[in-house]
Amino acid sequence: MKKILQELINGNLSMEEAEKMLKTMQISELEDFAKLDTARDVRTGFPEAIFAEGKDDSDLVKIIQGCAKRGRVLVTRLEEDRYFKIKDELKFLHGEGFKVEYNNKARILLLKDVEIEKQGKIGIITAGTSDIPVAEEARIVAEEAGCEVLTSYDVGVAGIHRLFSQIRRMLEEDVKAIIVVAGMEGALPSVVAGLVDVPVIGVPTSVGYGVGAGGFAALNAMLQSCAPGIAVVNIDNGFGAAVFAATMVKQTVK
Amino acid sequence: MKKILQELINGNLSMEEAEKMLKTMQISELEDFAKLDTARDVRTGFPEAIFAEGKDDSDLVKIIQGCAKRGRVLVTRLEEDRYFKIKDELKFLHGEGFKVEYNNKARILLLKDVEIEKQGKIGIITAGTSDIPVAEEARIVAEEAGCEVLTSYDVGVAGIHRLFSQIRRMLEEDVKAIIVVAGMEGALPSVVAGLVDVPVIGVPTSVGYGVGAGGFAALNAMLQSCAPGIAVVNIDNGFGAAVFAATMVKQTVK
Amino acid sequence: MKKILQELINGNLSMEEAEKMLKTMQISELEDFAKLDTARDVRTGFPEAIFAEGKDDSDLVKIIQGCAKRGRVLVTRLEEDRYFKIKDELKFLHGEGFKVEYNNKARILLLKDVEIEKQGKIGIITAGTSDIPVAEEARIVAEEAGCEVLTSYDVGVAGIHRLFSQIRRMLEEDVKAIIVVAGMEGALPSVVAGLVDVPVIGVPTSVGYGVGAGGFAALNAMLQSCAPGIAVVNIDNGFGAAVFAATMVKQTVK
Amino acid sequence: MKKILQELINGNLSMEEAEKMLKTMQISELEDFAKLDTARDVRTGFPEAIFAEGKDDSDLVKIIQGCAKRGRVLVTRLEEDRYFKIKDELKFLHGEGFKVEYNNKARILLLKDVEIEKQGKIGIITAGTSDIPVAEEARIVAEEAGCEVLTSYDVGVAGIHRLFSQIRRMLEEDVKAIIVVAGMEGALPSVVAGLVDVPVIGVPTSVGYGVGAGGFAALNAMLQSCAPGIAVVNIDNGFGAAVFAATMVKQTVK
Amino acid sequence: MKKILQELINGNLSMEEAEKMLKTMQISELEDFAKLDTARDVRTGFPEAIFAEGKDDSDLVKIIQGCAKRGRVLVTRLEEDRYFKIKDELKFLHGEGFKVEYNNKARILLLKDVEIEKQGKIGIITAGTSDIPVAEEARIVAEEAGCEVLTSYDVGVAGIHRLFSQIRRMLEEDVKAIIVVAGMEGALPSVVAGLVDVPVIGVPTSVGYGVGAGGFAALNAMLQSCAPGIAVVNIDNGFGAAVFAATMVKQTVK
Amino acid sequence: MKKILQELINGNLSMEEAEKMLKTMQISELEDFAKLDTARDVRTGFPEAIFAEGKDDSDLVKIIQGCAKRGRVLVTRLEEDRYFKIKDELKFLHGEGFKVEYNNKARILLLKDVEIEKQGKIGIITAGTSDIPVAEEARIVAEEAGCEVLTSYDVGVAGIHRLFSQIRRMLEEDVKAIIVVAGMEGALPSVVAGLVDVPVIGVPTSVGYGVGAGGFAALNAMLQSCAPGIAVVNIDNGFGAAVFAATMVKQTVK
Amino acid sequence: MKKILQELINGNLSMEEAEKMLKTMQISELEDFAKLDTARDVRTGFPEAIFAEGKDDSDLVKIIQGCAKRGRVLVTRLEEDRYFKIKDELKFLHGEGFKVEYNNKARILLLKDVEIEKQGKIGIITAGTSDIPVAEEARIVAEEAGCEVLTSYDVGVAGIHRLFSQIRRMLEEDVKAIIVVAGMEGALPSVVAGLVDVPVIGVPTSVGYGVGAGGFAALNAMLQSCAPGIAVVNIDNGFGAAVFAATMVKQTVK
Amino acid sequence: MKKILQELINGNLSMEEAEKMLKTMQISELEDFAKLDTARDVRTGFPEAIFAEGKDDSDLVKIIQGCAKRGRVLVTRLEEDRYFKIKDELKFLHGEGFKVEYNNKARILLLKDVEIEKQGKIGIITAGTSDIPVAEEARIVAEEAGCEVLTSYDVGVAGIHRLFSQIRRMLEEDVKAIIVVAGMEGALPSVVAGLVDVPVIGVPTSVGYGVGAGGFAALNAMLQSCAPGIAVVNIDNGFGAAVFAATMVKQTVK
Repeated sequence: MKKILQELINGNLSMEEAEKMLKTMQISELEDFAKLDTARDVRTGFPEAIFAEGKDDSDLVKIIQGCAKRGRVLVTRLEEDRYFKIKDELKFLHGEGFKVEYNNKARILLLKDVEIEKQGKIGIITAGTSDIPVAEEARIVAEEAGCEVLTSYDVGVAGIHRLFSQIRRMLEEDVKAIIVVAGMEGALPSVVAGLVDVPVIGVPTSVGYGVGAGGFAALNAMLQSCAPGIAVVNIDNGFGAAVFAATMVKQTVK
Repeated sequence: MKKILQELINGNLSMEEAEKMLKTMQISELEDFAKLDTARDVRTGFPEAIFAEGKDDSDLVKIIQGCAKRGRVLVTRLEEDRYFKIKDELKFLHGEGFKVEYNNKARILLLKDVEIEKQGKIGIITAGTSDIPVAEEARIVAEEAGCEVLTSYDVGVAGIHRLFSQIRRMLEEDVKAIIVVAGMEGALPSVVAGLVDVPVIGVPTSVGYGVGAGGFAALNAMLQSCAPGIAVVNIDNGFGAAVFAATMVKQTVK
Repeated sequence: MKKILQELINGNLSMEEAEKMLKTMQISELEDFAKLDTARDVRTGFPEAIFAEGKDDSDLVKIIQGCAKRGRVLVTRLEEDRYFKIKDELKFLHGEGFKVEYNNKARILLLKDVEIEKQGKIGIITAGTSDIPVAEEARIVAEEAGCEVLTSYDVGVAGIHRLFSQIRRMLEEDVKAIIVVAGMEGALPSVVAGLVDVPVIGVPTSVGYGVGAGGFAALNAMLQSCAPGIAVVNIDNGFGAAVFAATMVKQTVK
Repeated sequence: MKKILQELINGNLSMEEAEKMLKTMQISELEDFAKLDTARDVRTGFPEAIFAEGKDDSDLVKIIQGCAKRGRVLVTRLEEDRYFKIKDELKFLHGEGFKVEYNNKARILLLKDVEIEKQGKIGIITAGTSDIPVAEEARIVAEEAGCEVLTSYDVGVAGIHRLFSQIRRMLEEDVKAIIVVAGMEGALPSVVAGLVDVPVIGVPTSVGYGVGAGGFAALNAMLQSCAPGIAVVNIDNGFGAAVFAATMVKQTVK
Repeated sequence: MKKILQELINGNLSMEEAEKMLKTMQISELEDFAKLDTARDVRTGFPEAIFAEGKDDSDLVKIIQGCAKRGRVLVTRLEEDRYFKIKDELKFLHGEGFKVEYNNKARILLLKDVEIEKQGKIGIITAGTSDIPVAEEARIVAEEAGCEVLTSYDVGVAGIHRLFSQIRRMLEEDVKAIIVVAGMEGALPSVVAGLVDVPVIGVPTSVGYGVGAGGFAALNAMLQSCAPGIAVVNIDNGFGAAVFAATMVKQTVK
Repeated sequence: MKKILQELINGNLSMEEAEKMLKTMQISELEDFAKLDTARDVRTGFPEAIFAEGKDDSDLVKIIQGCAKRGRVLVTRLEEDRYFKIKDELKFLHGEGFKVEYNNKARILLLKDVEIEKQGKIGIITAGTSDIPVAEEARIVAEEAGCEVLTSYDVGVAGIHRLFSQIRRMLEEDVKAIIVVAGMEGALPSVVAGLVDVPVIGVPTSVGYGVGAGGFAALNAMLQSCAPGIAVVNIDNGFGAAVFAATMVKQTVK
Repeated sequence: MKKILQELINGNLSMEEAEKMLKTMQISELEDFAKLDTARDVRTGFPEAIFAEGKDDSDLVKIIQGCAKRGRVLVTRLEEDRYFKIKDELKFLHGEGFKVEYNNKARILLLKDVEIEKQGKIGIITAGTSDIPVAEEARIVAEEAGCEVLTSYDVGVAGIHRLFSQIRRMLEEDVKAIIVVAGMEGALPSVVAGLVDVPVIGVPTSVGYGVGAGGFAALNAMLQSCAPGIAVVNIDNGFGAAVFAATMVKQTVK
Repeated sequence: MKKILQELINGNLSMEEAEKMLKTMQISELEDFAKLDTARDVRTGFPEAIFAEGKDDSDLVKIIQGCAKRGRVLVTRLEEDRYFKIKDELKFLHGEGFKVEYNNKARILLLKDVEIEKQGKIGIITAGTSDIPVAEEARIVAEEAGCEVLTSYDVGVAGIHRLFSQIRRMLEEDVKAIIVVAGMEGALPSVVAGLVDVPVIGVPTSVGYGVGAGGFAALNAMLQSCAPGIAVVNIDNGFGAAVFAATMVKQTVK
């Protein structure tokens, strides 16, 4: 601003020109304010993420193409058959330096131009084998967000002894957070949080039937846990748990 | 019947008299059939039970007086202040050989004329201290139904190590069933059932708040348990759990 | 332990060797502790059970193969068309002495190497014909867990007279528990529990529509039953009811 | 109308007068149409009913006074303490030929100027003693609507043999409908409807706790009944059941 | 009984024979008692009804064949494609004097050997066109149960003027009950019950979306109606409404 | 801005002074931007509103005092006994030119310094007398927001003929919107919207019991209405309905 | 009427003829009354609308043909594949001057004979791309109802800065109402209503999963909004929102 | 262990003594294993916490006395009147070096023997004034767990401009996490998470009415948020949010 005023005084700028320049500057500051860019800058570590469900194939391809111009892209909840349908339309990305990886368990399509450096570790545990897809979604998202991930699947409370050595290993590896994925009665996060001193992020899954259908029994059990140090995300929301965990981990390495 | 027919043949009964006697006999058999008395006979081990909630004081006293004529009486869900109000009206029972005991944790009034012999053991565990009233209701009912009861209160999953020695003790004492009382996330029955080979009866309690209010989170977690060997009763239904457990135990000592 | 110490004194072991051996022994005991093996030993009467729903075919075959190495296997909730798809991949088990039986009503695949001896009886009753699949699941599981099973299907409360003789027969056969399977309004367990003195395990089914859709009306009716001596499992959980009943019956024959 | 036209022709009415008279007549016919008076005429057998809950005392007194001008009045859901508060303000009605009766079980205040003739019978059954207030509300309303009422309280399904003779008696007395009032698991209407061939009106009550709290378990069980011939009213709605039953009975005596 | 006793006295029967015959007689009386046959006799006016949903095709055919031996059969909730699949297997019934009629709106298959005489009228009204299948189910069932049926479809509250003349017609035809079928907000039964003095049976339908999905908004609106004289059946339960209405109508023509 | 730049050029401001003044101006513009003041300006017609529920008395008084500095204040959901407790502490406001009015039906406290001019009319209708408090809340709020209000209370669908003339009167008075307040089955807005061509705002009330408890049956019925032209606010939210209606009416008089 | 009476006096009509004519006139007036035609007249600006869901193809075609006789027709919730199936059967309409337009995003089929003049503007905003179909439904309906529509899609609260300029543009264009379409957590209408002074109509969508499945989280958030000036329609009800908005706008241009 | 073995070799211990000592050592190691002490050690930073609700006064005092022996104690959900009742019984603690502080907004009683050193900052924001008690609970707990806390209350989305500067201040202060407390529609955490790059912990409160009653609308909105980086705790669970946040912060300062 000083510079503009100086130019005005110096007569290099007419008052109209000065006024216009100040206003332009001001608008861009207004926009900066609204955008709170400081926040955004820090976020650039994350790839852009697209939720495929509820978008039709042609829209999806267009959105992917748009995002790919700005770097890595992560497409979640993309069923395998849909992936095969749109695969060819994404071929051109190879030419632009992208690696295209599809993980059918996690139902994630990953378009990568650069490898991301890993900083900080998290653990991911599932109660059963049916919870693995949600855990895999979380794993890939967390890795792409720059975390190293330790996994231990199918160690539910019904046979609690399987759990102990896994927890110990994760603590020894100094994980900064543990994501616990569980459907059915959702008891595992409570048990884990009773054993560890790192934050536990509970992810209820829609694995269950009868009163457990849809994952609500698991969700409520996690929210109502009598063990402290648990926070919860939406049912089947492996993505959200991973972003949350990675955001936490970033605080520890700043 | 043989006797009637014989008397008829012998001429000691007229045919009309015989017919009438046979019909009377028949009606009483009909009623027996409807009553399935064989079942009732076995049941006589239980005291009569009255659910005090929703009955006004004068009705309650009348029902107690009626039941007391037939032997031991157990009044459940009787708040302490109500007990004090009706106490004097039950005094006459002392003269009739009844001991009157009120347990304010369990909210049970017990009118006892005879001591019942104990046969078979059950265990009762609670997750927290707030679950104790429901457990105490179960304990008294089970004892009055002829079971020996081992209790272990406040051993929830948040600190799982407290649980192990208690479970081991109960197994060593050869309990035939374990009643597990838990509110909040209701995870304890799952954990217990994963450790033992006796039937586990889950009793959800209305201890909790937010999503756990009313005990529904606990109930659903128990019903949806991934550990086998659990059955569940209604929220706060210590009475029902105890009757169920005692009925089971009776099968083992027959 | 004695032996190790003796060898140490005898000089056959160096102190280092003795310490290492004691530690190894200790670790295995630690693990035993966590596993509470006493419990597991008693459980070996049950075949391993795999819940097929939510597992894809290739995972399922691998899990079956793994389990079959340890003995009898029971695969539940396996739809007939899935069975036909994986059938050939299980053929090799014949060579290993397994009989492969598929029951399409119960949706159970059974891999048997030995016949299990039956000890103790249970009854299974259904309210309607649509409840039979859940009852059949319970029947097969209970039989494989070592129970003799008496069944009586389609005897609901709408025509209560059908029920009486069936109940009487079961009591005469000295069943130790009755599993009552019912959808719709779920009234049957209440009626049965009013007639008998053995434990009644209610299994709500998802048979129903409108307010009864999903089996919740039946579940709640069973939990809220005013007849004592009922415990309940999750909707459609024939497996859980049978394991619970068999666990009970084992207490009576110990 | 003829008369008006005749007068017009006769010159006794000017055209203006005739037009005005025809319009007036027409408006009153319009209103009649909207009111569907034919329907209302038949209804006059019922007293006016006022739902006391949610109205403050002074409003309530005013409404009662207004209604009393048109004949019998029935005030429902009037708690005893409220009755005592407004009692004096209704005294003047005695002078106007009203009998004032308050039933504290049914929580009904009845202001009667004439006795109503009874035509046709209905039965009212309750499952438990706590359901009696709702049944009593139904009884008084049905009697005031002109029905003779047979009652049989506390005959629930837990002891089914108590039920049979009561049902038989009602059928022998030729009741035209049976109102079955039940809380808890709400199984009684199903059982009754399985035994009789008159319409069964189910009234769920808010008696229950845990999953049965509020009467929803009972409501859903009744709606989902597998016995045909049941229709249901709102929870605790003894009033509605009685009006419905009385409306039915009127069809049989027309 | 007299006869047996006489034969015994006459020496034509040994005492053993007499005892056996009396017992046999007694058992059959016991069964009669349990069956409450008086009720069943009156019911014979209804055809046997089979709910097709949840039964597989082969079971369904067997049940139909069994029922057809006892007379008219009504198969409800039978989708058109299922009807075409089992059609041929029912052909033999033509030879046995049955007419086979399938109504694809109502999804009812009717096997008729005799025409039933009509006694008494009921009205059936729907709010929208999408409610017609449920209404048609009710119509056919009511007709087969001996009622004459007047229908008026698609006269919902959004255009209340369409409703008036239809109601008036039904009242003039002296219907004994009106079944009102409505989804969405379920307001129609309230409006109708405000206009007529015959019983109104509300049938909520699962027509609706969002908060109205599944028919619960309509169900609750009907149960909570502030117009007296309404009773309600389960969502989409045209069958139940018709049986209830026909049971009522039978009371008026006895 | 021009002025500042001119002063700078004129030398009346140093560059530092100019820069500071521009920045200050800019910050206030930034804040204006965030505040979207254009919107706020239009809003100034409304008094400040304080929701009393959930605020303790001392906090409430402080907030009222704070708001009163900026003009008219409207305190909603203030129970009468609370009003009497805080009344004296608000006395000083009289000295500051405020009129203090408390309406106990509406539970609103109004602190007025100026009378607001009325522009545009709205109608408010209630189904029953118990809905009046919510309607009165709406009335006062709407009047304070500058609307003229026509009311018609207790004209529910059970007697539809009462409704017609009231609707007609409102249309003749040219109301721009009708707020329809109804509990129970919530059918009235559907009926009204079927008759008029002005926007109908449905306000469900918590008047009801059983399935209607809490007002959810009414809410869902209104949302699911098959009559077009209805929008809905939260249960008992007379305030919100009035603000919405007044906001609408302002559009018509701009 | 005057004319008839005059003819009667003149002798051109017999009294019978006059009476009959007056009655006929009266009936038509009665019907007019019931129809409240004044309201209908104003409504004629709207095309007839048919909700395609739940109607089978042949019924749908018939209804369309019937409506087309009376002018413009709008068929909502018509999936693209259904449109292609019925397309040919609607061809004849071209001959009758109709333009047939199908919008596959909005799932609306529009049969237009005349263009409608636009009066007044509304804005439509969506939170995400998946909310666009509901918004498009609203847009087309609002346009056909005579509104000019400004849209701004995919401006949700997660990136609030995208929202500001869009809101500003709409206010500058003087929209009379803003329809805000949002699924997931449904926060957008609250944010918008906090910024503007025109009525905000919230349309929750069924976009979401887990606790947000079906759109209930969004619906409840909108109803419970702490920002004043919001009213809400049913989940996914773009149609209803548009009709409501257009009805409002008509009030502003009268 | 070495020592024992040495003593054995040295002959200072008999083999029996050595075996016994080794076993004792082993048992204590077993217990250590079960306790996973490594975890506990890290946890000692937290004071012991007691949830006062659902515990009666005498039990509560006993539990407090027990805990106070082990150091700082924090009693949550202790209403002010209860505090005054038990206050005197805690006086003796002053003698033992405890400071007793009661915070009536947060409803927390704090018994402190040492001041805890603060490490790392968190922010706490509330949407409204009614959310402050939950926020205050979180603040005190977080401070006692060693966090420095920045608060900003009453900055809800209805006036979004109040929010921006608060968020900016917290980011500048380098908070490691932000706890966002909100009732009603629960939109605030979504908005905050859209602006910042630190983890956001949503705490729904039971502030609301109608559809928002109990806090479920807020809970679901937070779980279903479309902004990434949010995890959620139970309704009103300020305690849980603070423990979770403090656990996170500890990871950053290790």
